[in-house]
Formats: sequence, C-alpha cells, structure tokens
Amino acid sequence: MEFFSLVEPYLRQVNSLLEEQLLTGNELIENVAQYLLVASGKRLRPALVLLAGQFGTELSAARLQKLIEVATAVEMIHMATLVHDDIIDDAVMRRGMPAVRTQFNNTIAVLAGDFLFALAFRLFSSAGDLAIVDIAAKVVHVMCVGEIYQNMDHGQVATEEAYWRRIEAKTGFFLETSCRLGALATGVPERVETLLGQYGHHIGLAYQVVDDLLDWLANPETLGKAVGEDVAAGVYTLPIIYALRQERVGSQVQKILSGPHPENQVEELRHLLEKSGALQYAKTQAGHHIDKALEMCRQLPSGPAQRALEELAEFVLAREY
Amino acid sequence: MEFFSLVEPYLRQVNSLLEEQLLTGNELIENVAQYLLVASGKRLRPALVLLAGQFGTELSAARLQKLIEVATAVEMIHMATLVHDDIIDDAVMRRGMPAVRTQFNNTIAVLAGDFLFALAFRLFSSAGDLAIVDIAAKVVHVMCVGEIYQNMDHGQVATEEAYWRRIEAKTGFFLETSCRLGALATGVPERVETLLGQYGHHIGLAYQVVDDLLDWLANPETLGKAVGEDVAAGVYTLPIIYALRQERVGSQVQKILSGPHPENQVEELRHLLEKSGALQYAKTQAGHHIDKALEMCRQLPSGPAQRALEELAEFVLAREY
Repeated sequence: MEFFSLVEPYLRQVNSLLEEQLLTGNELIENVAQYLLVASGKRLRPALVLLAGQFGTELSAARLQKLIEVATAVEMIHMATLVHDDIIDDAVMRRGMPAVRTQFNNTIAVLAGDFLFALAFRLFSSAGDLAIVDIAAKVVHVMCVGEIYQNMDHGQVATEEAYWRRIEAKTGFFLETSCRLGALATGVPERVETLLGQYGHHIGLAYQVVDDLLDWLANPETLGKAVGEDVAAGVYTLPIIYALRQERVGSQVQKILSGPHPENQVEELRHLLEKSGALQYAKTQAGHHIDKALEMCRQLPSGPAQRALEELAEFVLAREY
Repeated sequence: MEFFSLVEPYLRQVNSLLEEQLLTGNELIENVAQYLLVASGKRLRPALVLLAGQFGTELSAARLQKLIEVATAVEMIHMATLVHDDIIDDAVMRRGMPAVRTQFNNTIAVLAGDFLFALAFRLFSSAGDLAIVDIAAKVVHVMCVGEIYQNMDHGQVATEEAYWRRIEAKTGFFLETSCRLGALATGVPERVETLLGQYGHHIGLAYQVVDDLLDWLANPETLGKAVGEDVAAGVYTLPIIYALRQERVGSQVQKILSGPHPENQVEELRHLLEKSGALQYAKTQAGHHIDKALEMCRQLPSGPAQRALEELAEFVLAREY
C-alpha cells in the first residue's frame, strides 16, 4: 500500500509534535491532552496535508518541517472543533470514550478547544506564509457558520440541498483546505493545487455521507457510538431526508420523527430506511463523489503520492468505522 | 482631551467594521452580534492599538486601514474571550446585561466565540504581516493558559505572586500586545514599540487590579454586576489575598471563606477588607503600575498621541466603572 509507506513515517512526526505541544507540564492541560491523544481519530486531515505535500520537487528538510507543522496544526483545529462540538451536541461519548465535557466539564472543554485553536494558529504562522494563515482562518470561519446553521436546523428536516451545503461547510471545505495547505507548504504549481483541492472537496463530501450512513449501519463497538445517535440528537442526515420523500415509507418515518420519542424507535427507523432504499441512495451519492475524486487523481502528476490518494479514496468509501 | 480627539474618529471606524463583519445576514449570528455590540465595553484594547499606531510617520490611507483592521480584530478576540469566559464562570450577567449564555445558551456562546476568533484571524492575516498573526495567536494562547490556571485555583486562595502571574496572563499581556500590534501595523522604530509594549503591560496590570477592586466598591448600577461577585464565583483577588495575611482580620476573613456560604457574607467581607487596609493596598499597587506606565510615556516621542496615553493612564486609575 503506497498510502501507508508515504504517510506513516510523517504521521509519526505529527504525533510527536502534537505530544510535544500538548504535554506542557500543566496538569490540567496534560490530562485533557493525554485524553485527546488516546481518543485519537484517524488523522485523515493531516494525512491529506502530508500527501498533498508530495507533489512538488523533492522535499528539503526545511519544507518537510513546515509540512509536518502545518499537518499538526490542521489536526489541532480538528481536535478543537471536536471538543467544542461535544458541548454543542451535549455529546456523552466520542470515539468510543466519554467526551471531554463528560470526562471533565464544559469549562475545560471550552478552554481546551480555545487552547488548541491558539496553538494551531501559532504553528500556521510559524510556517511563514500568510496564504496558509489565511485559508486556515477561513476554514474555521466556514465550519463555525456551518455549525450555526446546523444548530438552527436542530430538530428540523432540511432539504437535500441544505444537507449538502451543511456537510460542505462542516467537512468538504476542511478536507479541501487540508489538501491546499499541503500544496501551499511545499509549493506546487497552481494547477496541481487546484486539482488537490477539488480532490479534497469530493473526498470530504463522500466521507461525511459515509459517516452519516455509518450512524445507521455501524457496530457500536467499532464506531464507538450507538446507532441512530444523529436522530436522537435532532440532526437529520441524507438517509432520513431521502426516505421522507418516498411515498409510503415517508409518512411512516414522519410519524416516528414527530412522535414524542423518536430516539426509542431507532430500529423501526433503520428498517424503514433500508426498505425505502435510503441507505443505498446515500451510498450511491458517496460513490459519485469518490468517482469525482478519482477523476481528479487521474489528472494529477502520476507517482506514489497520486496512487496513495487513489487508495485513500477507495478506503473512504469502503470504511466501516 | 487629546484622547478623545485622537481615538474617537478611528474608534467609529472600528465600530463600523465590527458591524459590517458581524451583521452577516444570518439571523442567529445577527442576534448574538447585535447583543454583543450593544452590551459594548469600553473598547480599551482597540483604543490602545489606535494610539500606539500614531507614533510612526504620518498615517497613509493604506496604513490607517490596516490599523483599523487590527484594532477591530483585537476587539473581536476580546469579545470572544468574554463570551467563552461566561460559560466558564457560569456568569449570569455581563456588563449590566444578561450574559450570552443566559440570553441564548452554551451552544450559541461556544459558537459565537469561535466565530469571533476565526473572523479576528482572518483580519489579522489580511493585515499582511506574519509578525502580527504571530503575536495575536500568542496572546490567545497565553490567555487560555491563564484561564486554565485560574480554573485550577478555583475556590482556593493563591499567593500574591500567583495573582500577579494570573492577571499578567489575563490582561497584562493582552494590553501589551494591543500596543505592540498598533506599532507593528504602522511600522515604528523598535525602541518605541518596546516602550509602547511596556506601557501596555503596566496599564494592563493596573486595569485588572482596579477591576478586581471595583468588584468590592462599585455601584452595581454603573458596573452592571453585583458587589463581591468574584468571591461568590470562587475567585480570590488581591484585596482578599492581602487581608488574609493580616493578623487579626486574616482569621476572620478565613472563617467566612471556609464557611458554607461566603457569598452571603459579602458585606462583612467588605468591611473587613476596608478595616485591614486591603482595598487601599490594592489601590496603591495599581498606582505603582500607573506610575511605571507614565514613566514609559515620558520616554516616548512627545506629541498628542503621547499625551493621550498619559490621559488614558490617569483614567485607568480613576475609573469607577
């Protein structure tokens, strides 16, 4: 697998830098940091930064250092939004562990998120390129606006169009930006940067659709959260939006959602989503975006990094956790 | 008053830019923004940016624009920390109005703060100078660490040394940085930037000591919050720390603080603080820092901006709200 050989060694450097930055000697920060480092995600965003950074000329030591710093800062932004989202969603679990706000409290979660944002911007700024700071600030801005819209839609079913807008703000733009940041940190031709950005955008949308789908399909033990959590939290994703449009099933789904306790009828809902083809529809939509991402890959300069991006695209569609 | 003639016209431009950036057409953001704009503070930090920006050569239109943007971004950082601090402190009131988290809820408060941070960094980055982004990120970082320490000290009396460290992180460094940012945005000689930074540092410490003092002295109608709120929130400031060191009064104060409801004995506490000279001690300490700030002023290039900084120093000590 090209992916692992090209990403793993650098990802280890990202992890070391994360530890170095977060384990500061302050007991409270260290507790939260240890927790965040253990409750680790897939490091998808730094992986994109690292791969997108391999399309320029050979990486000098200085450029590699800059790439590692930018990839680390991107993961910090991601961690910060997760910690703050847990307050927003009143989440109890995150990645199979108690959420920061459950483990500690809202105060610590607010502070830990702000701390991560600040550290991230110090790293972005130390990369020595204003264009990097600029798109990093833009991505935080866009995600906030997206979260605000999601919050306004809370407990309401949005249109499919609004769903796509929401996941673009939440994930599509962040993954697009991760790719662009890798390109900026290493200086690749503009045409390549644009292709990488579009690749990230489509990967991001597919990733989020699959995430929303896994909320209905996944084994709680591998995903680390219960099935149907989105509906229980008042967030309606693509399968629900699709099912509601179907003639007979739609009114049954509607009935459950407008009832007093939809969270207790997750099994019935899942059955209705399957019957209406809603889960298949979401999978097909994710597949379309993966196809588009692969199309971008084919136009990129060929080589190991390009093949690794193809592998990553396949993984995003096939993943079960 | 030099202060008003030199600051007011630019502060109006800061206010316009704040409105332009915050009134985005999104209902929820606008509600919070309208509220934040009305529950307005004294704009001390942008005023420092604006005054520190008047020590270079004459302001070109481009430099003035940059200065206004940096001053606006500084106020956004301040607003963001206030909104997040309200979650941390479980504050009910802020500046005489219900806190964002009371008026709206914790979710909106988290998002509004993050949104303000992101907007601020977009403005800092558009100023086109990495040194600006760098110290702006550092100030957020330092304030977070300060808040984390304050949080760890919650309900405990710190040493006076720890008190000074805490207010340096919370206010001293931010006001120092505000001055430095004004200097950086307009390009003044390094010696002047250093003096301006030291001025801001001392103004910041004095301002915070006076703030902590006003918690015991102020008329709730002008300050917009009740007397003794800090103690009620488990935050012990300089007057308490001083009083505890005094032989007879100290044990009486200790007794109240270790009792079940110190927040119901605010009047007794205030009386003890007066009797022990603790309030006077805090005022004297603030005065020392104002003296040092004035010493920096005397070394600055003379002129209206320098006189305005002197006026501001006098105001910080004399303010009653």
